[in-house]
Amino acid sequence: MKVTFDRLQAFIHDAMMALGLPDADAAVVAKLMADADLQGSDGHGVTRLVPYARRIQAGGLNVKPTIRVVEERAGTALINGDNGMGHLVMSRAAEIAIAKARTTGIAWVGSQLSNHAGPASLYASMPLAQNMIGLYFAVGNANHLPPWGGLDMLLSTNPIAVAIPAGNERPIVLDMATTVAAYGKVKTKAQRGETMPEGWMIDRQGKPLTDPTRADEGMLLPLGGMEAGYKGYGLALVIGLLAGTLGGAAMGKDVIDFNHDDSTITNTGQAIAAIDISAFGDVDAFKTRVDTLVRDLRGSERMPGVDRIFVPGERSHDTRVARLTDGIPINPALQRNLDQLAEQLKIKKLA
Amino acid sequence: MKVTFDRLQAFIHDAMMALGLPDADAAVVAKLMADADLQGSDGHGVTRLVPYARRIQAGGLNVKPTIRVVEERAGTALINGDNGMGHLVMSRAAEIAIAKARTTGIAWVGSQLSNHAGPASLYASMPLAQNMIGLYFAVGNANHLPPWGGLDMLLSTNPIAVAIPAGNERPIVLDMATTVAAYGKVKTKAQRGETMPEGWMIDRQGKPLTDPTRADEGMLLPLGGMEAGYKGYGLALVIGLLAGTLGGAAMGKDVIDFNHDDSTITNTGQAIAAIDISAFGDVDAFKTRVDTLVRDLRGSERMPGVDRIFVPGERSHDTRVARLTDGIPINPALQRNLDQLAEQLKIKKLA
Repeated sequence: MKVTFDRLQAFIHDAMMALGLPDADAAVVAKLMADADLQGSDGHGVTRLVPYARRIQAGGLNVKPTIRVVEERAGTALINGDNGMGHLVMSRAAEIAIAKARTTGIAWVGSQLSNHAGPASLYASMPLAQNMIGLYFAVGNANHLPPWGGLDMLLSTNPIAVAIPAGNERPIVLDMATTVAAYGKVKTKAQRGETMPEGWMIDRQGKPLTDPTRADEGMLLPLGGMEAGYKGYGLALVIGLLAGTLGGAAMGKDVIDFNHDDSTITNTGQAIAAIDISAFGDVDAFKTRVDTLVRDLRGSERMPGVDRIFVPGERSHDTRVARLTDGIPINPALQRNLDQLAEQLKIKKLA
Repeated sequence: MKVTFDRLQAFIHDAMMALGLPDADAAVVAKLMADADLQGSDGHGVTRLVPYARRIQAGGLNVKPTIRVVEERAGTALINGDNGMGHLVMSRAAEIAIAKARTTGIAWVGSQLSNHAGPASLYASMPLAQNMIGLYFAVGNANHLPPWGGLDMLLSTNPIAVAIPAGNERPIVLDMATTVAAYGKVKTKAQRGETMPEGWMIDRQGKPLTDPTRADEGMLLPLGGMEAGYKGYGLALVIGLLAGTLGGAAMGKDVIDFNHDDSTITNTGQAIAAIDISAFGDVDAFKTRVDTLVRDLRGSERMPGVDRIFVPGERSHDTRVARLTDGIPINPALQRNLDQLAEQLKIKKLA
């Protein structure tokens, strides 16, 4: 089944209003969630609607938050999200960061008492239209990563996203978890009855774990794998410190597993930075340099069997273009869940 | 052979003055280069003295630069290093970033026309004493990394370093190249006549390359290796854009290989950011949270065969403590090179 972007957005909007969000807030969340599906971030879009609804109905998320700045300097702010939807908190954070960076050249806005906000790239990309670079960091909402050599699950797949404007080329948009595979990919393998490649997870003896139904018995490997996983561990740690600990949000033992707990406040922390390119010289000259670099990368001689060289963000862009025309695919299991939710919320079904 | 920190520092100081640096500049460079050896960053310390000297004598580096701010906002600056030693440029950058962050909460200072500055961690750590977090990004001075799937060497091992203050615990200091192995490790394997583990390099057919004497026939694998190397490629790319392209420094095809070219201006770009912790809340409360996290990580249950769990920066700290007592080891080949340099410069030998 495929739906248009507009239909998906309207469906999520209806659902969010039925769940108690004010109209304007429901619109912001619906736009960002549908954007996630449009760009192919399927694990972060409408598939999250059912768990979000479950959390709201369990009282674990505030549908009418008072999002407010609790610390502020010329180039920084800390936002208290009042346990609202992360999409609202981090949209506000991005607006503040962009406004501040226009004056100071760079700004950093962190959150506390936020919630899951969808794909990191959505927020990192917000400064692009202002000729700014965006950086985004988040603490994931479930710990599946121990420290290097350890067994205690103290870290999440803490992602980083960086978005950099180009001129005639498309922006460069990197969005990556700091584990070899994001946990959503493990869940997808389990749903499909497939095995995982070696290198995604290990068991408690350090042996490869390839059966995704046994995921609870093992742990994700940090980026770098068996060879250099201490680097991915280090990245996950410092991202968590920047996005979580700095702003007084959950990190380490304080992170609750939002897959198995709908009612405890997550106190999610994220951070966004905006860098105004004009603070470092001529914007057009910068964009020309980025264009040249992108073309050099894309035009590189290729290894045998490689058809195309990608620049970060190109796959998402291609998916966006294709799905705007062809529609957004909704798998049967997801459709059933969304139909059930629509019945429960007494809203029009997705299709 | 082992030497004390003070003796090593004095030797480098003498060499730099003999090469034409003013006394005060030679002192800054000597301190930072000896610090690199002290903390175990052996590939970035006194081993670089001979190539630095060769570059200076070939006219490829300005011994009396006028380092100046060419772009400035409240929270940002771009420094033109006038082709001076990178240590001087990035020390100045750190000072400016710290001073600005005290007011704005965050500051970002980039460089152009800089040079190799030694280990990233030295600069990322400079804000620590001011209760600030430091971030450092650099474009490496030789391209050994193609885009993912490609063969053209368009990227370097572009490192990132992040330093975060703790309370009673030691600061967390991550310093990592965005390749599985830094190129210096390949050179070390070649010197020792050892083979490399699979996963460090591949040849032009994508097959593992384990003979370090054949390094020129292959390429480094980006962090993530065969499984997820597109992530390390993405990181190397965005770090290069932030540290190089943003400030008009060399990136991509413009990066010269300073191992094989002593006279062309490198136009090296680096960037440092300082984040004032007090802009986000109480500093002591933050440090207590970091201490708790460090202890949780260190105290984690361990995998079979693992003796100790490290937090980033602990190995360097342990090395520093040991070498302050035991001295800094200088291998015979390096000692011969330094003795030759001392004769040539007519300065007192290291030992």
